[in-house]
This record gives sequence, C-alpha cells and structure tokens, in this order.
Amino acid sequence: MLGKSQAKYIQSLGQKKVRDEEGVFIAEGPKIVAELLASANADIVQLYAMADWIRINQNDCKGVELLEVDENDLGKISQLATPNKVLAVIKKFEELPDIQTKGTVSLVLETVQDPGNFGTIIRIADWFGVGQIFCSIDCADMYNPKVVQSTMGSIARVKISYTDLALLLEEQKDVFIYAAALEGQNVTAMKKVTEGLVIIGNESKGISPAIFELVDVKITIPRKGNAESLNAAVAAGIILSHIV
Amino acid sequence: MLGKSQAKYIQSLGQKKVRDEEGVFIAEGPKIVAELLASANADIVQLYAMADWIRINQNDCKGVELLEVDENDLGKISQLATPNKVLAVIKKFEELPDIQTKGTVSLVLETVQDPGNFGTIIRIADWFGVGQIFCSIDCADMYNPKVVQSTMGSIARVKISYTDLALLLEEQKDVFIYAAALEGQNVTAMKKVTEGLVIIGNESKGISPAIFELVDVKITIPRKGNAESLNAAVAAGIILSHIV
Repeated sequence: MLGKSQAKYIQSLGQKKVRDEEGVFIAEGPKIVAELLASANADIVQLYAMADWIRINQNDCKGVELLEVDENDLGKISQLATPNKVLAVIKKFEELPDIQTKGTVSLVLETVQDPGNFGTIIRIADWFGVGQIFCSIDCADMYNPKVVQSTMGSIARVKISYTDLALLLEEQKDVFIYAAALEGQNVTAMKKVTEGLVIIGNESKGISPAIFELVDVKITIPRKGNAESLNAAVAAGIILSHIV
Repeated sequence: MLGKSQAKYIQSLGQKKVRDEEGVFIAEGPKIVAELLASANADIVQLYAMADWIRINQNDCKGVELLEVDENDLGKISQLATPNKVLAVIKKFEELPDIQTKGTVSLVLETVQDPGNFGTIIRIADWFGVGQIFCSIDCADMYNPKVVQSTMGSIARVKISYTDLALLLEEQKDVFIYAAALEGQNVTAMKKVTEGLVIIGNESKGISPAIFELVDVKITIPRKGNAESLNAAVAAGIILSHIV
C-alpha cells in the first residue's frame, strides 16, 4: 500500500524546486526504466511497480527498494496521462568534473525551453554518439519529467551540464564552433568532423547575437519550399547526420 | 462581446467529430494566422482577435468576419495554455482531386499518431519542398489543433490526404518507394532523387510488415551511439535532407 504522504512526495517531484532539494528525479514506463536499470550511470533509489511488471523484471531490481502498487496508486504518483506499469525515483547524475571539448563533438543548447524538443535532442545526441551537451542556464530542466520521457532512456548516456555559454565558447580557442544559420556553408556539402561544438538555438528566436558572434562555421540547411524555419530538434538531427 | 453559445461552439472545434460535421478547423496566434491570411489556399471564415492585433492587421482581413475579443473571451475559446492574440476559424482544405506521384517526391505516413510529430513532419515537408503527404487512415487528424499549431502555417502549403496505403503503394509500379529501416543503404551515401515516395512509420512500432514488403529501397540512418531509435519527425528530416 502506498501511503498518502509518500504519494504526495512523489507527485511533488514534478516540480524543479523539489527535485533540486531532494537530488532525485522520476522516470516512467517499462522501456525507459529498463534502460536505467541496465545503465551503470543511473542510481535508482526506488521503484513503484505493478505486479505484472515485477514478475518479469524482479531479477533486474537487486539492491533497489521495490514497492508493489496497483493501477489506482500508480495513477496517484504518475506524471503521465496514461500511467505505464512502473515509476522509478533516480538520483540526479553527477556534474561533469571538468569540461573536455578536444577530440570530440559536443552539442551546445541556447535557451531550448520546450521539454519535448530538449529530450528529443538528447536522444539524437545519443544516436549519433555525441556524449556531451552544454546548456545555457535558461534551458529547460533536464530532469523535467517531460524531458526525461522524451529522451527514451538516453538521459543516462549523455552528459548534460548547465553553464554560462559565452564564457564556455570564449575559452574554445582550439575547437571549432558550428551553428545553423540562414546563410552559411551548405550542410549537404560539408566534410565530416571529429571535433567541434554545434550550437542549437531557441525554438523561436534562434541563437542570440552575443553567442552568434563566437561562431566559426555557419551551416545552412538548404530550403527548397516555403516553411520559415525547422524545429530545433529536427535541425540538430539533420546537422549531426551530415557532419558526424 | 462573445456570446456563450458561440464560445461553446468554437471550443467544440477541438473535437474531430465537430470539425468533420462543420467542415472547419481552428488555428491560433499571430504567426500562423498571418500565414493563413497570406495563403491563397486557406479560406478563413471568422477571426476572433484582440484590439492590438486588429489595429495592426486590419488591412489584411478584408472579406473576413472579424470579431474583437478581450483576453478573457479569448481564453474561453482558445485551445492553448497561453492564448495568443488571435484565433481563426478556417474551412477545411479541398481533398486532392487525384493522386499524382510521378516527377515529385511525396511523404507517406503510416500510423503517425502523435499530433506534435505529425505537425512537425508537415513543416519539414514544406521546408524541403515536398508538396504532398499521404496518410494512413489511422494517422492523427491533420486538423487537430495541436497538429495545426505544430505546422507553423505549413498546413496551408502541403497537400495532405488520407488513404489506404497498401492500395496506394501497390499501384506505384513506376515510382520508387523508400523507407527507413535498420538495415539498408546508408542515407549519407545516397544520391539525390527527384521522384519517389518516402514512408515514415509509427513512433514506436515503425512500419508494418504488410507495408514494408512494398518498399523498393531501404534506407539506414547510421547509428554511432546507443539510442534505440530516432523520433519519427527527426528521421523524416534527416532522410529528406540527404535525398531531396
């Protein structure tokens, strides 16, 4: 049985303030929870699961506090419109000890505020083997449940840190900085790169002038039709598919 | 002043059943409404707008029934969490008279059910000059407010039709059928095409076996990391950026 105060506590983890205080976040559903259980990086504190999930997954849950809940209880703690078998409470990941940009391709997000877009970008990074994302302080919270769900488990495999982007980029004297722009090199004609920072800007405003000044290589995704812009996550996917 | 029954009517256009009966749909916000006003394809029936929007846009609204509303009234008719200045009621677009697949690249969507994904795919098609999308009957409704908003106005420029995909594809003897698959031609090494049908499958299940059998060219987006899959809209954007 799930106690009332416990249910209230888990629900409250939908709020950034509470997540920050408690140092934990939640993830839901068999697929993402399986990925987190299999990941060496994810430290699961508690699992709330229905009997049928427990029957199948019990052996993978060693060392984790596991509580059986019924559908009604799961509905009380879930952030999803349709609760899905299992909810995990996980310790936040450790911050990157120091910033390494040499010899690797990383993403840089400026003011990406839509949780779905942010989570999708984390998933794209994971697909293309991009292991690091640097976010401006005003990006969405990576532990927002909608972000976590959109990553489909990739959140445990990509290192994400929040930082002052202008400071970070000004320090990159030896590493090329790339960004999508209306005028620049045609992405379809670009050579592959093995090192660099690729900036993705805000969904409606794009990249701010202060950050744009620091860009070394401007990249254009050629437009053949009439849409005014592309979704930020789609642009990230297209650029990485051409240059990584 | 907005009457109570009128407000209720517009709210009810959030439901597919009512949209189908009335033959209209809604779109909101200055950006998308401006695109619809400028489009020869969109037949706007009514506009509900705040005074500041009307002051700026009045000259573009000739021949359209225009009603001034205050923030409170707009909140009553809006489908958005944050109502945004203007709401348009628009006649549904005419169905494609007949299917033309020769000499052009079209998208084919099978069971794409997430409205945000669907809308984003319409926007991507518009960016790459893909003028036609064929959808399976069980795709999301193109007039769902979330689809309309995600297209950012592209809904007025891309022809969308719902059809039996197996029948459609079986008829395409002269036109190549492409689809993303786990094993296939590397998308980054593919030549550009000027004709073909590109299938995008369901968000979690991909393309059904019956449809997959009809594919001529399988395309792979090479994976360098560990994510299990890519978002359907992102995959569509990547494929089109390489082959169109």
